[in-house]
This record gives sequence, C-alpha cells and structure tokens, in this order.
Amino acid sequence: MSIEYSSEQLAEILGSSLSGSSRKLNKLANISSADIYSVVVINNKKQLLEIRDKEIGLVVLANGLESNLDHIHCQDIRFAFAKLSQVFDNKPEIAASIHESAIIHPSAIIAQNVSLAENVVLKAGVHIQENSQIGANTVIGENTSIGKDCKIYPSVSIYPNSQIKNRVIIHSGTVIGSDGFGYALGPKGAVKIHHLGNVILEDDVEIGSNCSIDRATLGATIIGSRSKIDNLCQIAHNVVLGNDCLIAACTVIAGSSTVGKRVIMGGGVGVVDHVTIGDDVKIRGYSGVTKSIPSGETWAGEPARPYKKYSRNMYLQNRLEQIWQIVKELKSD
Amino acid sequence: MSIEYSSEQLAEILGSSLSGSSRKLNKLANISSADIYSVVVINNKKQLLEIRDKEIGLVVLANGLESNLDHIHCQDIRFAFAKLSQVFDNKPEIAASIHESAIIHPSAIIAQNVSLAENVVLKAGVHIQENSQIGANTVIGENTSIGKDCKIYPSVSIYPNSQIKNRVIIHSGTVIGSDGFGYALGPKGAVKIHHLGNVILEDDVEIGSNCSIDRATLGATIIGSRSKIDNLCQIAHNVVLGNDCLIAACTVIAGSSTVGKRVIMGGGVGVVDHVTIGDDVKIRGYSGVTKSIPSGETWAGEPARPYKKYSRNMYLQNRLEQIWQIVKELKSD
Amino acid sequence: MSIEYSSEQLAEILGSSLSGSSRKLNKLANISSADIYSVVVINNKKQLLEIRDKEIGLVVLANGLESNLDHIHCQDIRFAFAKLSQVFDNKPEIAASIHESAIIHPSAIIAQNVSLAENVVLKAGVHIQENSQIGANTVIGENTSIGKDCKIYPSVSIYPNSQIKNRVIIHSGTVIGSDGFGYALGPKGAVKIHHLGNVILEDDVEIGSNCSIDRATLGATIIGSRSKIDNLCQIAHNVVLGNDCLIAACTVIAGSSTVGKRVIMGGGVGVVDHVTIGDDVKIRGYSGVTKSIPSGETWAGEPARPYKKYSRNMYLQNRLEQIWQIVKELKSD
Repeated sequence: MSIEYSSEQLAEILGSSLSGSSRKLNKLANISSADIYSVVVINNKKQLLEIRDKEIGLVVLANGLESNLDHIHCQDIRFAFAKLSQVFDNKPEIAASIHESAIIHPSAIIAQNVSLAENVVLKAGVHIQENSQIGANTVIGENTSIGKDCKIYPSVSIYPNSQIKNRVIIHSGTVIGSDGFGYALGPKGAVKIHHLGNVILEDDVEIGSNCSIDRATLGATIIGSRSKIDNLCQIAHNVVLGNDCLIAACTVIAGSSTVGKRVIMGGGVGVVDHVTIGDDVKIRGYSGVTKSIPSGETWAGEPARPYKKYSRNMYLQNRLEQIWQIVKELKSD
Repeated sequence: MSIEYSSEQLAEILGSSLSGSSRKLNKLANISSADIYSVVVINNKKQLLEIRDKEIGLVVLANGLESNLDHIHCQDIRFAFAKLSQVFDNKPEIAASIHESAIIHPSAIIAQNVSLAENVVLKAGVHIQENSQIGANTVIGENTSIGKDCKIYPSVSIYPNSQIKNRVIIHSGTVIGSDGFGYALGPKGAVKIHHLGNVILEDDVEIGSNCSIDRATLGATIIGSRSKIDNLCQIAHNVVLGNDCLIAACTVIAGSSTVGKRVIMGGGVGVVDHVTIGDDVKIRGYSGVTKSIPSGETWAGEPARPYKKYSRNMYLQNRLEQIWQIVKELKSD
Repeated sequence: MSIEYSSEQLAEILGSSLSGSSRKLNKLANISSADIYSVVVINNKKQLLEIRDKEIGLVVLANGLESNLDHIHCQDIRFAFAKLSQVFDNKPEIAASIHESAIIHPSAIIAQNVSLAENVVLKAGVHIQENSQIGANTVIGENTSIGKDCKIYPSVSIYPNSQIKNRVIIHSGTVIGSDGFGYALGPKGAVKIHHLGNVILEDDVEIGSNCSIDRATLGATIIGSRSKIDNLCQIAHNVVLGNDCLIAACTVIAGSSTVGKRVIMGGGVGVVDHVTIGDDVKIRGYSGVTKSIPSGETWAGEPARPYKKYSRNMYLQNRLEQIWQIVKELKSD
C-alpha cells in the first residue's frame, strides 16, 4: 500500500515543472506533519511563512507565491490538491470478488469485475454493471439497476426500481427510494399515498452518508449528473435537481421542487415544496427558501431574499438600537 | 405484476360514476407520461388546459372542473389520488417466508404469515404478530414486540423493549430506542444517565427513513396512533406525541416535550425540551418553538410566535428601510 | 434480570444516610408509576406535592426539600439520578462471545472478552481490545482500531483507519469516517478531493444514532475525550472538537472548524467552516455561527452574536411596532 512518486513525476502529472531537486515522495501532508517525503500544497502567504524553516520534499505553490524549497507552481491550486489527493490515496483496493455471504437472487444480473462484500443482499431483478463495488451489509431492492464503476459503501439501503447510473458514489447509511411523505387527510386519519415512482441518480453523482432521497409519487426523483450531496440531506419525492449542483450537509429540499444546474446550497438550507430554483443560483447556508428563485441569483436569510436585500436588512437590524434611541428622543421633544 | 382495471371498476372504487366510455387501465400517471391506458388526476384549471389535446384513458376531475375526455368526478380529489395510488401499486409482493439467513433467537415468537428477509436478526424474547414483514438486515433487540401487519423496511435498528403496535411502517435507516441525550455534569466529566424506559409506536404510525426516536429515561417515548413522521426527524427521550400528527422532515422535538393531537409541523422545526403543544396546533416549517403553545393556534418564526405576530413582524421588517429613512430625515430637521 | 437493593444500600451508594425505614427496592420510577418497591428522585416543590399521598419505597430529595416518606437527601440530585439509573439498568447483559455469523478477516485481532454479535463484519487489520461489544450488522472497515470497553450498537458503519479509543459508545445508524464534502471545481464538473485522513474518537466519547462524522482530508477529525454528541449530528472533515463538549441533536459543524473544551451547543446549531470556538462557549439551540467565538462566551441567533446583543436585538424587534407608530406620527406632524 506504499505509494511512491518522484518530484518530477508529480510535476508532470500536474502539468508543471520542477524548481529544485527531485526526491522520492510518499504522501500528501499538512504543514504540521510534513517531512522530506511529503508533498505540501501552499495556498497563501500565511502558510508560506509556516513552512519557512521546514524540510519538505516538495512544495506545490499557488501562482504568485515563492519559496526556496524544492517546488512547483500550479495555476489552479485546488485542482492540484484534488489531483494529488487522488494520486496518494492508499485506501485498500477492493478486489473484484463476490463474498460467499452475499445473498443474490437468481434473477439478478452481475457484470464482470463487480465486487459484492459481506452480507450484501441483491433482490430479484437487480442489475449491476462492470467494476461496481457494493459494500458490506448493503441491501439493493428489486429491479434496481447499478451502472458501471459505482461505489456503494456499507449499510446503504436502496429501494426497488431505483436507477443508479455510472460512477455514482453512495456513502453509508444513505437510503435511496423511501416513500415520499404524502397523505390524504380523511375522517379516520391520514390515508397513505402510495409512491409508485422511483429515484434516478445520474452519472457521477455522489451522495454523502445518512441521506434520504425519496422516490417520486409518479415519475422520478432525479439527481442530475455530477451533482454532489453532502451528509444528512433530505431530497423529497418528485424533486428534480439539475446537473453539477453542490448541496451541503443537512439541507432539505421539499416535495416537487425543481432545482436548476450548477446550484450551490450551503449547509442546513430548507427549500419548501413546489418551487423552482433557476440555474447558477447560490443559497447561503441556513436559509429558508419559500419561493422560486430566478437563475443566477444569490439568496440568503429565513425567509430567503436576494442577497442584497438580505444584507441591507442585516445592516438595518444593526441600526435598530440607533433608531430606537432617536425615536425616543424625537418623541420626547 | 401487471394490474388492470376498467374505468367502471375505478368509478365504483371511488364512489363516482363514469362519463364516457370504459377502457382498460393499467397505471396512474402524470400528465406528461399519460396514454390511453392511464388514469390521470386533475386538480385545477391549469392542469385541465395541459390535457386538452391528449389521449388519456380516464381523467379523474375535482368537482367544478369539466372535460370532454372520458372522466369521473370526485369530491375529495386528494383522497381519490391516494386510493388510486394504492390500487395501482405494483411493487413486488413480499411472500410470507423466513429467509434461511435470518438469525432468530430460540425464544423469539413469530406468528403465522410473517416475512423475515435476508440477514434479519431477532434477539431473545422478540415477538412478531401475523402478517408483519421485516426487511433485510434489520435488527430487532431483546423483548421488542411487533404487532400485526407491520412493514419494517431493510436496515432498521430497533433497540430492546420497544413496543411496535399494529400496521406500523418504519423506513430504512431509522433507529428506534437509542439512548436519550442525558448526562449529569460532574468534576470528572459527564456521567451518563442510563435510559431505562422504552419507545412505543401506536397503531398505524409511519416513520420515514433515517429517523432517531430515543427511548425514555423512565416510562416511554410515545408516538400516537396514525401519526406520521417524515425522514431524518429526531424525537428525543420522553416525548409524547399525540394521535394523528404530521411531522415533516428534519424536525427535532427535544426531551420531555408533549405534543397534542392532530398537530402539523412543517420541515426543519425545532421544539425545545419540556414544553407542551396543544391539540390542532400548526407550526410553520423552520420555526423554533421555545415555549408551550395553546391548542388550535398556528405559530411561526424563530423564536416561534403566533402567526399573526409573526407576519406583523415580517411586515415591520419590510418597513425597516422606510423607518430608517424617516428617522434620519427627522433627526436632521 | 431482577435487581434488588435495600434503602440502606442505596443510601450508601449515594453517600447519604437513610431517614426512615429500609425496604427492598427494585426500580427507579417516575412519580406516576411509583410503588413501594420504587425509588423516586424529587427535584422541586411541585414534585414534592405530587408525592404527598403516595406510597413510595424510597424518595431521594434535593437538599432543601423535606418529606415524611422514607427518604435520603443528596446534594447533587442529577448526579444521584444518573447513579441510580445505572444501578437499576436491567437491560440484557451481553455475553462475551463471537456469533458464528460474524465475518472476521483472518488478519483482524480480537482481544479477550469481546462480543461480536450477528453478522458483524470486521475487515482486514481491524483490532478490538478487551471487553468491547460490537452490535449486530455493524461493519468495521480495514485497519480500524477499537479500544477497551467500547459499546458499538447494531448497524453502525465505521470506515477504514478509524481510531476508536476506550469506553466509547456509538449508537445505531451512525457513520464514522465517510468522505468529507470537498471538490475542486473544474470545466468538466466537480473533481473529488480524496480524503486521506481519518477519524479519532477519544476516550469516553458517546455518539448518538444516525450521526455522520467525516474523515479528515489530511490528518484527523477528532472528537475529544468525554465529549457527547446527540443524534443526527454532522461533524465535517478536519473538525477538532475539544474534550467534555455536549452537542445536542441535529447540529452541524462544518469543515475544518475547531471547537474548544467544555463547549455546549443546543440542538440544530450550525457552525460554518474554518472558525474557532473557544473553551467553555455556550451556543443557544438553532443558532448559526458564522465567525469565531472567544472562550467563555454565550452566543445566540442567526447569525449568532453574543447573547447580550442577541437579547437586546430581540427586545428591539419587539419594539418595532412602537417604533413604526411613533415614526408615522412624527412624520405626519
């Protein structure tokens, strides 16, 4: 599991060129734990000061920073970090194998090079394509399909008829396809609306741990390609989330709301049901969205408003004391 | 798994009568995917316009709407939808059988017609009544009882001594009976309060996915009959929730609070500990309830207030700019 | 499983002395269910009134309260309650045994007196020390270490390389070590940052059910000794939480934030990324922390402010109506 690259190899991988001497490097490190076998990525001048007297194998510098340690420069320093994190990922490789404890319905279809870990349960009609890995104790319901190169971590629950496309990652504890929260109120209590639709996770989606993504009432709840959802999020029935969205932890998107492409939501956002959020919208963490948002806007607050309005309101909130004092003074005149 | 009804049969099921000709129908559909084998439910004039030029097998209209497609009218259109969703639910039937991989303690008692899926674990003294279904990889702790006709989905964890009554539905990832968050602060750190009580889910309760319902310190945490709880909710130790409540996703009810009957909470509501919420209370999503609420009231905001106060405050918030301008002007006079 | 103590034994355990006659006691009870075999803890005068005409085996009174029932006094009544809850905890003892269905990699090391329940999965290189208990269907990833006297409940998922120290409790559904939410945005969509770090839970930590604690990007996400985290909390990558913290349900601490010692957060708190919260800070439930907080302070609100500012703002909010009326009046003069 030891991984080793030379400084020159890494420079090449990052499309840069080496200043200084080449070494053997075996890890990507924080400044505090760096040694002469480490690569360290430096974003800013503060970090530059911190490494001044250190011995570090290779320093990757954002453009505009200089160091007399052996280094390379990268224009997109965050991309460089992502690339290096992939290069030095030494997590145990999962061999393509079907553990003897996996329980596979005879009608399930499993392509080549699939890994099914301990106690995996595949129900009737499940279809898994090449190179996908299913973690221990995960349960996949009837007629669900899993594409190529997926990574489903342990203890995931996927309900029947779900469609998981290619290169999808789902972390532990997440539930895909549970029933939406829909009832008709009758004289003898709530009557359950059966949810006949399903969930579709498009290519390259990643879902964090302990999320709930409900199946649609009719049709599909859809998470668009390359969208990433953090832990403990709730995506309700019939939601359609566009491509390339980033949804931070503990966000709730209520039933039948539609979210455009490249939308970014901070943590703890709530979006009410039946609203439409346009493309390229940004929503500040902990906002409560109660109406539709046009494309390209940044909103914040509870209830959420355009950011300018929100920050003007914040400003005025901070003037309340002054207003109160002036008003009292004027009144007493 | 194909389900087929004639228009006349459906009219009878819904207590209505058919206008037009009868067809064979095999699904409940959205407008966008409807064909001549579909039933479509139409709530409003906008939808009525959308179906104008379509061929649809049967249209179910809310009273007051008219169409020259074959149709029936229903007074309670949401109830009609719920009924149709049940009629056309073609999810795989679960046979009454005990999978050979289920691990059942010899002292567990299992009634007739129970289904235990793959890798189910029943600990000592578990009692499951007729027709209940336990999903794959679910673990049921010692001395827990499960009533008749329950549906426990895969990967549910139920702690010892829980009482699950009849026709209860619990979705995947939910945890019933974990310890409450209670400690005594001492000089050597927090001392754990052992939680000796349990959780009782009364008849016809439905709990969404990834919820946590903690056991009581002493006595029981109770979810009343026919109450429905959405995904990712936290019901803390000693909470007593009345009958017929609807609690939307990501709501937190803190320790020892009491909630009346027919209470409706929007998503993301927080209720502090040791408060009492009366019957028929409605709480807007994302409110933070910090004190008791009398029966019949609607509250909103953080901290939550009666709705009228809340919306007056919203109005005044929106006057802040005007107030600020007037105050500056008066001050400078 | 019946537990019996005499009043005198309990007095001794609590370091107090008995006033009245000694009885045989077999449970810790609420007032409503108490009988002559019960111990009841009385905190306040209201409860004192409620027990006036009851027959109760032993009453434990906070200092300053008096009763003519058989009783003892305790100075720290909450500590006394915690102690009694431990004494009367009759939950089934878990025998030290390895269930035959547990799947243990040959390279895993298991110390004496460990309990592995049904369907537990231990991956390569797992190390479990003495007296620890692993619940049914829990999965422990490669090279994770579990200390002594830990209690891991059913259906927990622990990712590779985690370090769980001694006497740690983890409730069902919790996920330890899932990837942090980190991406570099590129022209072809988000590029995943691989998370090469791990999670460390120090001694005596307790984590509630359905929590997500993400692994660090580099280094470790750390939960300090004796800290307790309630259900459904999100602790993001690189967070360092100090010792002796109490974090109530549904709280989110975003990436790379640092929290001091003895910090108390109410439920539903959000803390943004990259802030520092000092020692002994208290944060009111449902606050949104957007900047660093110095040691010893109490903050509240969204965005969170020092409590004094927050409550002054609440006061002024409640003056808005008055301000508006005065302003209108002055304006019309």
